[in-house]
Amino acid sequence: MKIMASDIWQEIEKIREKVPLIHNITNYVVMNTTANALLAIGASPVMAHAAEEVEEMVAIAGALVINIGTLSDKWVESMFRAAREAKKRNIPIILDPVGAGATRYRTETARNLISTVPPSIIRGNASEIMALGPEKGARTKGVDSIALSHAAIDAARGLNITYGSTICVSGETDYIIDNDIIGIRNGHPMMSRVTGFGCTASALCGAFAAVNSNYAMAAAQAMAVMGIAGEIAAETAAGPGSLQTAFLDTLYCLTASDIGKHLRIKD
Amino acid sequence: MKIMASDIWQEIEKIREKVPLIHNITNYVVMNTTANALLAIGASPVMAHAAEEVEEMVAIAGALVINIGTLSDKWVESMFRAAREAKKRNIPIILDPVGAGATRYRTETARNLISTVPPSIIRGNASEIMALGPEKGARTKGVDSIALSHAAIDAARGLNITYGSTICVSGETDYIIDNDIIGIRNGHPMMSRVTGFGCTASALCGAFAAVNSNYAMAAAQAMAVMGIAGEIAAETAAGPGSLQTAFLDTLYCLTASDIGKHLRIKD
Amino acid sequence: MKIMASDIWQEIEKIREKVPLIHNITNYVVMNTTANALLAIGASPVMAHAAEEVEEMVAIAGALVINIGTLSDKWVESMFRAAREAKKRNIPIILDPVGAGATRYRTETARNLISTVPPSIIRGNASEIMALGPEKGARTKGVDSIALSHAAIDAARGLNITYGSTICVSGETDYIIDNDIIGIRNGHPMMSRVTGFGCTASALCGAFAAVNSNYAMAAAQAMAVMGIAGEIAAETAAGPGSLQTAFLDTLYCLTASDIGKHLRIKD
Repeated sequence: MKIMASDIWQEIEKIREKVPLIHNITNYVVMNTTANALLAIGASPVMAHAAEEVEEMVAIAGALVINIGTLSDKWVESMFRAAREAKKRNIPIILDPVGAGATRYRTETARNLISTVPPSIIRGNASEIMALGPEKGARTKGVDSIALSHAAIDAARGLNITYGSTICVSGETDYIIDNDIIGIRNGHPMMSRVTGFGCTASALCGAFAAVNSNYAMAAAQAMAVMGIAGEIAAETAAGPGSLQTAFLDTLYCLTASDIGKHLRIKD
Repeated sequence: MKIMASDIWQEIEKIREKVPLIHNITNYVVMNTTANALLAIGASPVMAHAAEEVEEMVAIAGALVINIGTLSDKWVESMFRAAREAKKRNIPIILDPVGAGATRYRTETARNLISTVPPSIIRGNASEIMALGPEKGARTKGVDSIALSHAAIDAARGLNITYGSTICVSGETDYIIDNDIIGIRNGHPMMSRVTGFGCTASALCGAFAAVNSNYAMAAAQAMAVMGIAGEIAAETAAGPGSLQTAFLDTLYCLTASDIGKHLRIKD
Repeated sequence: MKIMASDIWQEIEKIREKVPLIHNITNYVVMNTTANALLAIGASPVMAHAAEEVEEMVAIAGALVINIGTLSDKWVESMFRAAREAKKRNIPIILDPVGAGATRYRTETARNLISTVPPSIIRGNASEIMALGPEKGARTKGVDSIALSHAAIDAARGLNITYGSTICVSGETDYIIDNDIIGIRNGHPMMSRVTGFGCTASALCGAFAAVNSNYAMAAAQAMAVMGIAGEIAAETAAGPGSLQTAFLDTLYCLTASDIGKHLRIKD
């Protein structure tokens, strides 16, 4: 599978033309910033978590993004409801297992979601993916990324083989694991000092998956766009505050030429 | 009813002098940005949603803003409690029926709120207002605005006649429907690419209604200020990220002359 | 106790080296901005509020920050659970009693938390602290600061004597009350027009307390850094929108020399 700048651009144009509704059941911290990122790329975000409406909402959506960053019991129930309905309707599901490995509640919720309704794409950092893989992962200290290890890719392979999900392990290099492994080397170190960029990456995976049923490709393209927009934004940002602002501006103004110039695929 | 720049400015000065407390029961996505907009215009925002305290909180408020953007059962209960108390105390109620028409839960919650405790002002986009009007509205795709149609104004008239509420249908032209129809033509297309500007407009309606019991006038002035601040912000914004930032700066720095220069009323 | 610029800088370096996990059970309005402030100073924020996981989460944290800005019953239960576990493990607890005095629910929740599990640091504005002190405080109008009075310092002394907590009364001058009284005179008036700067100050108290068990010192240093970063940000900000952005940038870029130049201690 080859990631081409021209294909990425074509998918962005598809998003802008179709304006897919992306249904997010996500955490409180990032609701505003991920909604803004989805609007900036050209999609239409909606946040809805009530058991009373999630099935009806997901039924009109192009993708469902589930993020366990601030979960609680009623929200977990709604995540399952929405995921089952999405699966029934063949709507792609993206799971962001924020903080898996940090507490049993997060790890088990994520594991249960994956085994009950296997997501199309799972995107997490190395420690989160390791916590979900067949081998017991290292206990993570919160939600920060730890150095990507071979263990994370092994865990990702295990998840992919068992559940068929495309796994994205994000870090300095983002790895997309499916039949192939793709490495995307875009991004900027300052991005780790802005809350919710990981969650935003998952939301963008939803936008790309809504217009492309090749989910490995969709995930790789989303991660590339994420990293490229972050890099361009970092060129002018004075710190993490202006990086967040410039990131949204860049996502909105992104051109085919920006993508062509910045895309860096790992050989 | 005539909308004059000098009157708008006078009301802003009144908000800054009285610093009315605006009690918001709103959605998670926009809590931060609407609180900031209320602070920037000179009001004092508070967010409180617990059944245990909403009646006491609204009792010290100058207006109550109810927004159903991320509702769930307990929040709905609190919305009713707060609305009843506000009505009893003659405190203006502003309702933002986010996503009405997208799911039955949202449509029915909004309809029940309107028929049980008729709001002073209802502000939504065309599809939301149509979903609440006497005629069955078109099913909306999420929360995006669709082209404003005569149907929306008809629905608004119906709501106004039945419940006495001032109805604001926002879009490229914002229509305020009460005994008259006022059209405000301010705003900038990029505003639709920032999450929560509609919700911010509703919050500003709360600030203006807190100092002016002519709710049609208050709604029209709030929509004008919203659009004017958005236009001025768009002059320097590089995209939707910086538009949000510049919007808050502009709202804070707005002058009588800015309003006079930019105000555009539809004939 | 003497507050020295060089000591503040040393503590910031300690935060950056240890990257303490700060567990926040906080309000919806500020989750994004306080997480970003913690990342900018060099700490690692996590937000978690489910009864199922708060004890496990706080057990791996360097500090627990409890903020009652948008509380409800289940959240209150989790605040108690987390606080008890933190106390058991000698992990510092910071309480931000947002809106205490505005409703009985807030006042009583804050009072119960304080008497059941005395926090290491309580940070609030004058009216909030007065509402919690032994004398019945004035009823506050929402969450805005009122002019700091001797009554607030008296209330703070009472709280400190009864519970042993360091009390920080923030305002134009921030007072840190423990055995001594320290006054910090940094900050900028425009900061009061940005939502959540008080909550951010409490979060920063968490970061400093995580690396320094002298909590009075930690609170004073955190308030100084807060005010200094706000002042520097205000030099270039065009309004409250850009002030928030510049504040995060400044926090991230802060140097020993910035602190030395700006620190203003009240004699």
